Amino acid sequence: MSSVKTPYGRSKSYPTPEDEVEVAVIKISGNIIDDEVKLAAFLEKFAKIHGRKIMVHGGGKLATKMAEQLNIPQQMIDGRRITDAETLRIVTMVYAGYINKNIVAQLHKHKCNAFGLSGADGDAVWANKREKGAIDYGFAGDVEAVNRDLFITLLNAGLTPVVAPITHDGEGQLLNTNADTIAQELARTLSYGYDGYKVTLVYGFEKKGVLLNVEDENSVLPVLTAAHYEQLKEEKKIFAGMIPKLDNAFAAIDSGVKKVIIGQAEELPALLSGDSGTTIIHE
Amino acid sequence: MSSVKTPYGRSKSYPTPEDEVEVAVIKISGNIIDDEVKLAAFLEKFAKIHGRKIMVHGGGKLATKMAEQLNIPQQMIDGRRITDAETLRIVTMVYAGYINKNIVAQLHKHKCNAFGLSGADGDAVWANKREKGAIDYGFAGDVEAVNRDLFITLLNAGLTPVVAPITHDGEGQLLNTNADTIAQELARTLSYGYDGYKVTLVYGFEKKGVLLNVEDENSVLPVLTAAHYEQLKEEKKIFAGMIPKLDNAFAAIDSGVKKVIIGQAEELPALLSGDSGTTIIHE
Repeated sequence: MSSVKTPYGRSKSYPTPEDEVEVAVIKISGNIIDDEVKLAAFLEKFAKIHGRKIMVHGGGKLATKMAEQLNIPQQMIDGRRITDAETLRIVTMVYAGYINKNIVAQLHKHKCNAFGLSGADGDAVWANKREKGAIDYGFAGDVEAVNRDLFITLLNAGLTPVVAPITHDGEGQLLNTNADTIAQELARTLSYGYDGYKVTLVYGFEKKGVLLNVEDENSVLPVLTAAHYEQLKEEKKIFAGMIPKLDNAFAAIDSGVKKVIIGQAEELPALLSGDSGTTIIHE
Repeated sequence: MSSVKTPYGRSKSYPTPEDEVEVAVIKISGNIIDDEVKLAAFLEKFAKIHGRKIMVHGGGKLATKMAEQLNIPQQMIDGRRITDAETLRIVTMVYAGYINKNIVAQLHKHKCNAFGLSGADGDAVWANKREKGAIDYGFAGDVEAVNRDLFITLLNAGLTPVVAPITHDGEGQLLNTNADTIAQELARTLSYGYDGYKVTLVYGFEKKGVLLNVEDENSVLPVLTAAHYEQLKEEKKIFAGMIPKLDNAFAAIDSGVKKVIIGQAEELPALLSGDSGTTIIHE
């Protein structure tokens, strides 16, 4: 904080880079949600992160299992679920209900004041139903805006938001939405402006980071630049599932997010300290 | 607000009865949640209530239906569900997921800034697992405390809390909890203290109010006093299901809640204006 004396003898303060509020946005995916033991260990680590933090979680296999048990056929195209009305009901129950509330209850056990929400709650994440193209994704949402004020209100109240990947269109319709994109838009929104937060965005997934050789878990790239990413794509060394994730990561860095790291959620403290995973940098 | 001049020339303010913040706590039960058309009409009316408001919702038949489809046998004793581990999973999904998020999304359509939560979120409602007595209710919770500060933070942020009847024990365990009791404890907690809110608590259920003759929908008592209630119980004119609800209602009045009304949620504006339902008064 830099102080300037005003004519009235009181000092007026302007924010300086040192004043920036830090926040960690941690996204976890199905591989950790589906494994009770891994999830419990991860949550204990997450609870211990000092300072402001937000979790965004994906879905996992429970929704697919529930759909099977209820005889609701599931259609996946390129790893994306086609969300018909019955499937929307299931993902709303499983993601915003079962997974979200279990994560929240466990975090409280570790003295983390977690607060679960979907994108509908307090208009946290507003989305548009994806338009029918060659594929009709059904009730899938594309993020339109993240409610910055709401997240800041929750953080300032000492709460740790835990976000389920269900959004709404503001007209009463819930929408199934990609959690990677929610995490990216959230990180971007919080970084925005002269009073923006200093955001670290972590994408937790099943690999130890971006692999140079997908067969070799030890070929993790410690750093990935935009130019190198383009080159690896051309050389077809980075494939299908990774591309949307990395596109999200670079979009985040390009829009003011301070740090983006991709790696195994289990290694959370090492990811944040830069000792594990791949750090995404623009230059 | 009454003002007093202090020696420093600045006035100091003390709250007076006119300053009391008003809040309406509205509990709705299964009969309205299960009926899509009735629910939609109710939510439109709820959204129009001026000022601060909170909704507490019960469960409805969807959980029972889901349990049937998933072949999980349900046991009910005296109208209370026995919550085994599988059933807890279902009620968490259905109450805190499907029902809660659909209500929230619909309220936003009507420009009500709804925010859904369970008792685990932000430690909103802390409960103890009911001890095994003659009956083992399983993962059923008895409310220990409602987090007054959290609800006031949400209300002050312009949000309308929508509470699902799932609580937690602070040790990672979710618990299925009676929504009438949550509503009562919430109303009581908000009323408490010299800066307590002026709370109106509405119990919406399937009847038009407390009936003098259960067969006659037109025998609604406009007012019920504690003495009259005792008399009606002795005369066996008030039965099983009504007794815990009325006990909750009188407990609320006895602990400082300003107004308690029981009636049909569909008639919400008339309930609040005193033109419908039964008003519970102590004397």
